[in-house]
Amino acid sequence: MLVVMKAQATQEEIQAVCEHIEQLGFRAHPLPGAQRTAIGITGNQGEVDRGNLEALSGVAEVIRVSKAYKLASRDVKEEDTVIRFAGIGNHPDAAIGGRNLAIIAGPCSVESREQAFAIAELVAASGAQFFRGGAYKPRTSPYAFQGLGVEALRIMAEVRERFGLRIVTEAIDNETLDLVAEWADVVQIGARNMQNFSLLKRAGQLRKPVLIKRGLSATLEEFLMSAEYVMSEGNYQVILCERGVRTFADHTRNTLDLSIIPAVRRVSHLPILVDPSHGTGKRDSVLPMARAAVASGADGIMVEVHDHPEKALSDGPQSIYPGQFAVMMDELEKIAPVVGRNLPRGIRIGAGAA
Amino acid sequence: MLVVMKAQATQEEIQAVCEHIEQLGFRAHPLPGAQRTAIGITGNQGEVDRGNLEALSGVAEVIRVSKAYKLASRDVKEEDTVIRFAGIGNHPDAAIGGRNLAIIAGPCSVESREQAFAIAELVAASGAQFFRGGAYKPRTSPYAFQGLGVEALRIMAEVRERFGLRIVTEAIDNETLDLVAEWADVVQIGARNMQNFSLLKRAGQLRKPVLIKRGLSATLEEFLMSAEYVMSEGNYQVILCERGVRTFADHTRNTLDLSIIPAVRRVSHLPILVDPSHGTGKRDSVLPMARAAVASGADGIMVEVHDHPEKALSDGPQSIYPGQFAVMMDELEKIAPVVGRNLPRGIRIGAGAA
Amino acid sequence: MLVVMKAQATQEEIQAVCEHIEQLGFRAHPLPGAQRTAIGITGNQGEVDRGNLEALSGVAEVIRVSKAYKLASRDVKEEDTVIRFAGIGNHPDAAIGGRNLAIIAGPCSVESREQAFAIAELVAASGAQFFRGGAYKPRTSPYAFQGLGVEALRIMAEVRERFGLRIVTEAIDNETLDLVAEWADVVQIGARNMQNFSLLKRAGQLRKPVLIKRGLSATLEEFLMSAEYVMSEGNYQVILCERGVRTFADHTRNTLDLSIIPAVRRVSHLPILVDPSHGTGKRDSVLPMARAAVASGADGIMVEVHDHPEKALSDGPQSIYPGQFAVMMDELEKIAPVVGRNLPRGIRIGAGAA
Amino acid sequence: MLVVMKAQATQEEIQAVCEHIEQLGFRAHPLPGAQRTAIGITGNQGEVDRGNLEALSGVAEVIRVSKAYKLASRDVKEEDTVIRFAGIGNHPDAAIGGRNLAIIAGPCSVESREQAFAIAELVAASGAQFFRGGAYKPRTSPYAFQGLGVEALRIMAEVRERFGLRIVTEAIDNETLDLVAEWADVVQIGARNMQNFSLLKRAGQLRKPVLIKRGLSATLEEFLMSAEYVMSEGNYQVILCERGVRTFADHTRNTLDLSIIPAVRRVSHLPILVDPSHGTGKRDSVLPMARAAVASGADGIMVEVHDHPEKALSDGPQSIYPGQFAVMMDELEKIAPVVGRNLPRGIRIGAGAA
Repeated sequence: MLVVMKAQATQEEIQAVCEHIEQLGFRAHPLPGAQRTAIGITGNQGEVDRGNLEALSGVAEVIRVSKAYKLASRDVKEEDTVIRFAGIGNHPDAAIGGRNLAIIAGPCSVESREQAFAIAELVAASGAQFFRGGAYKPRTSPYAFQGLGVEALRIMAEVRERFGLRIVTEAIDNETLDLVAEWADVVQIGARNMQNFSLLKRAGQLRKPVLIKRGLSATLEEFLMSAEYVMSEGNYQVILCERGVRTFADHTRNTLDLSIIPAVRRVSHLPILVDPSHGTGKRDSVLPMARAAVASGADGIMVEVHDHPEKALSDGPQSIYPGQFAVMMDELEKIAPVVGRNLPRGIRIGAGAA
Repeated sequence: MLVVMKAQATQEEIQAVCEHIEQLGFRAHPLPGAQRTAIGITGNQGEVDRGNLEALSGVAEVIRVSKAYKLASRDVKEEDTVIRFAGIGNHPDAAIGGRNLAIIAGPCSVESREQAFAIAELVAASGAQFFRGGAYKPRTSPYAFQGLGVEALRIMAEVRERFGLRIVTEAIDNETLDLVAEWADVVQIGARNMQNFSLLKRAGQLRKPVLIKRGLSATLEEFLMSAEYVMSEGNYQVILCERGVRTFADHTRNTLDLSIIPAVRRVSHLPILVDPSHGTGKRDSVLPMARAAVASGADGIMVEVHDHPEKALSDGPQSIYPGQFAVMMDELEKIAPVVGRNLPRGIRIGAGAA
Repeated sequence: MLVVMKAQATQEEIQAVCEHIEQLGFRAHPLPGAQRTAIGITGNQGEVDRGNLEALSGVAEVIRVSKAYKLASRDVKEEDTVIRFAGIGNHPDAAIGGRNLAIIAGPCSVESREQAFAIAELVAASGAQFFRGGAYKPRTSPYAFQGLGVEALRIMAEVRERFGLRIVTEAIDNETLDLVAEWADVVQIGARNMQNFSLLKRAGQLRKPVLIKRGLSATLEEFLMSAEYVMSEGNYQVILCERGVRTFADHTRNTLDLSIIPAVRRVSHLPILVDPSHGTGKRDSVLPMARAAVASGADGIMVEVHDHPEKALSDGPQSIYPGQFAVMMDELEKIAPVVGRNLPRGIRIGAGAA
Repeated sequence: MLVVMKAQATQEEIQAVCEHIEQLGFRAHPLPGAQRTAIGITGNQGEVDRGNLEALSGVAEVIRVSKAYKLASRDVKEEDTVIRFAGIGNHPDAAIGGRNLAIIAGPCSVESREQAFAIAELVAASGAQFFRGGAYKPRTSPYAFQGLGVEALRIMAEVRERFGLRIVTEAIDNETLDLVAEWADVVQIGARNMQNFSLLKRAGQLRKPVLIKRGLSATLEEFLMSAEYVMSEGNYQVILCERGVRTFADHTRNTLDLSIIPAVRRVSHLPILVDPSHGTGKRDSVLPMARAAVASGADGIMVEVHDHPEKALSDGPQSIYPGQFAVMMDELEKIAPVVGRNLPRGIRIGAGAA
């Protein structure tokens, strides 16, 4: 159910409607729009009585939302969600969603301070605004490298200050969620946890952006329902990320399903990124798929970059070289305007005096 | 790495080898066999030096285990794992694995004491030895019924005492894991959590049997690696359960992959059950697939039974009627001997003149 | 559209209705049932006018068939289709569909007269009633063995006479279709040709049974539509065969989808067999899956048997040994009665006087 | 096996090597390159003796080709294959492969002369150089519109002359192959016939370009093996076309697998196009995926355009409007230079001073 407020409704009227909803045992989600505010109603005790709501002051109309996902639906919020990040030091502010493409780059795992700094410097120099690096790694084998944990979080906090890069890193359970939320700018929920509903609910109680990677066999509806889990708890800063699904095809590690980009745009207001590294698993497919992602309308790219991929503790074969990353940025910058986008390249270190 | 002890090795020798391994920073997993004990070595700091181990007293040989999964592998333990459960009251003991088929039956969700008791009575009467019932439900939608929680656990504890049925129920995160472990006989890890490695590790610290359902797009190796996560923490009582995978096929909710049964048998010593309810999602496919599962060599069946499926709060369309369950038991009893099995039917309440 | 005739309708009335339908530019398909005859109407020029048909003598009612497949649907013909084969020499008659299980066994390819005879003798001795052997092989590579062609057909004709085994072999195009139809008892359309509609139409003009293997990614509806292509041309002797579909799973060559058996039973009257050889691609999975297929309700098994699989020119790894085939027959014989079936074992050569 | 000739080898030497190969019972495929000629050797009677070949005059070296596909492999021919088409009337010549993008546009089915002309005029005006239109339609249902057949071929021949558009249309069996080859510029083999090996062999005997659409569940190797079937018969003018594969995903009709583009480039010299119409099945996903295809490196686009999609006899929902096609062309023209390509727009009727 969605309550659409009149354009001229006051904050008090909005507040009163929300309180009325909560008294009925439901949850109210005020969603400000360009013209007017809408209030999403969620809960699992059946439906709110419509008549009473329509009689409240400031209410324009009450609409039934027929899709399984409510708050994630474009029916509830027509305008694209843009998640904004303040500037760090003298580095400009940034956003995910909206006109500017967001580029998240970095190693699969943070392996050492030296490695993280070396890669961060290179990706910042090419214009990335976000740094990715695994602190807690969900590995198929219990005997594989599991990440440096909190040490990696501390290293990334330094990276943040030094290079003005926002930090995106994965939480793998409720315990690490709190730690990651403390240190990072964006909390990532990995593909294997896309339907870890307990974790999603806890992420919904954060007031930090949450990036959800599509599960290996998740349908569009399931993907949006995972976003809905986070949003239903009051955290509306959700970013989606396509990273390939599992099929019979064996020329790539996963099959990157770019057609989900226009499909998400159609039904949801949430931003969606593409990870061509996991999406292909092969270094020489990363650039072609990054270009394709932007051309298909994605809001940005999340990509693994490593200065010595052959020595990487995880995902070496799919990590691109810094030089390839620079080429990718140049290519994306040229494709962006074709789809009405812009690739901001930040303060390019070393782009220098020129 | 696997240390095979001599047949006549003493407990002290076994103990000494384990201590030696642990001192090297690895974990030792003594695995008693019919003839002799093997000691699995796990850890992620590279390989143990072989020579030193072979020199220890009581050691027959040291073998490299080439598969990604070690403790779950038949290379490490040749004999089938049988997980035994003591009798409850005057009800006989039970097992999962080995000659006897294990039948786990009950509603998708525990909805009330009345519902649970009614169904439990009926499935016990047909010879089930295990009762399944959801207390914590991982639902695709945050607005769907999420289970009765601890109240459901308490109801099932009563079911246990009243009908002599062992309880199998799902834990969805670390918090519920502790609760479930306290009340249930078997802790279930659901398909969507099959690669929730944090949860698997915690389950590995329990000393209760853990039933792992195959993920919707899990390969055989990934499935066994999830078992390995539990085992690597010292809990060797792991039960696998096939419940259908996701494919293009649309005549069933999932595609039940029975060919994983002989495949698991080939490479692992762990017992494997089949869930034809989730595996098909359609009531009238449940009996055919249950029969097929036993014919293919499964160690048992996990099935949803509801006395009023049309009113079920979850999974109604795939729940069979108690009468169908009774027919299924009769059919499985006849197929069992063809594959060298037996279907124990417990104390059948109300069965016969007795 | 389906015209249901009255129980006491005469042949003349049936004939008159058919002529009326054909005059309207449609095709009439009289389908005799136990109680009364139904007449299916097909064509692609829209719908027949219902009123006129209902007014014809002997017509009970006219029913709209809403499914995409008409003649293959159980809505049109309620009773199971049984395809009967006359006895050969002193060998008894046989059937596919109905109470008796049909077993089709033989090598992937006919490689020589000696090989075919050796295998035929062994499978006949275990009770097979049908012999399979490839004459024209659809191979992924143009450089792989393509079959002996008409020479293989001649060898199989000898096998037929010598052992009383009916011949099932594949046609790969219109040319080979005519040849195969001339020599074989059942014309097989392979999985890769399941949607070769031109070939299906030509097969519909034959008056020989046609066995259609499910395509590697065919849905249930597509599978039945392929049967419909054959039937729409007037050949109602269609046999379906599940042989595994393509998924991400890598422990088998294909994923055998046994749940299609109850699904086909529900909506179609056509018999359905299972091929566990292609369905798994692994010798030691063939017997478990053959048992599972019969337990799930399949009308029979099509299986590759080779006396020297390690030397086979094609599909060696999935061919079972004659000794395994004998074991399989014994196992299926025991499972059959559980599902209301019988496994006829023909004149078992050598089972004889001993 | 591949014989690499010396750069200065004469035509006589090349001819002599070919004859030598054919005398040994193999087939020789001379493949001229920029620097020197290579001669592929195919056949299924084992391997040619290497030593003898190396001794022949003009031979530089003899190389074993380890991949299953030989003639389609980049190991055998390093340079990209470019298939050239002469100009029609005063319309310029065209190519598939190489620097220029190829655009094939038109209706799913040719429905009438008026429809074909109306659409052809519009797509020509936007710069298409190839016209697609179905004459023989492989439809899932025998009761669906099957195409106008030879009448459609005649209409397209008129379209060719009138608008200077080369004709691409599908052959569905050996009979229609001859007809299509007579009237069309490119013979299409549809996805459902990708492994109709009999048809592929016949297409290999043509001396017209053959466009092969990827099967719904074809691996990269199988796709290239189908090309190999055509090439092994001496027709080296093969064009590949990705058109979506079958997965669990339900937001599109098929899952367009763009990552096959860089994968094909890596291992094969053949041009590869993308069909975003079948690849998505949804009109509003066509443009995003067309842009993505070019960005990923595809050699062109094959797209369904209809002036009245809501009235189309087939595939209406995935056909774009002519206006959308014009927009698509403008977008692709801008993306092309980013990937080192050019979009030739022919003689644009009505464009400019003309």
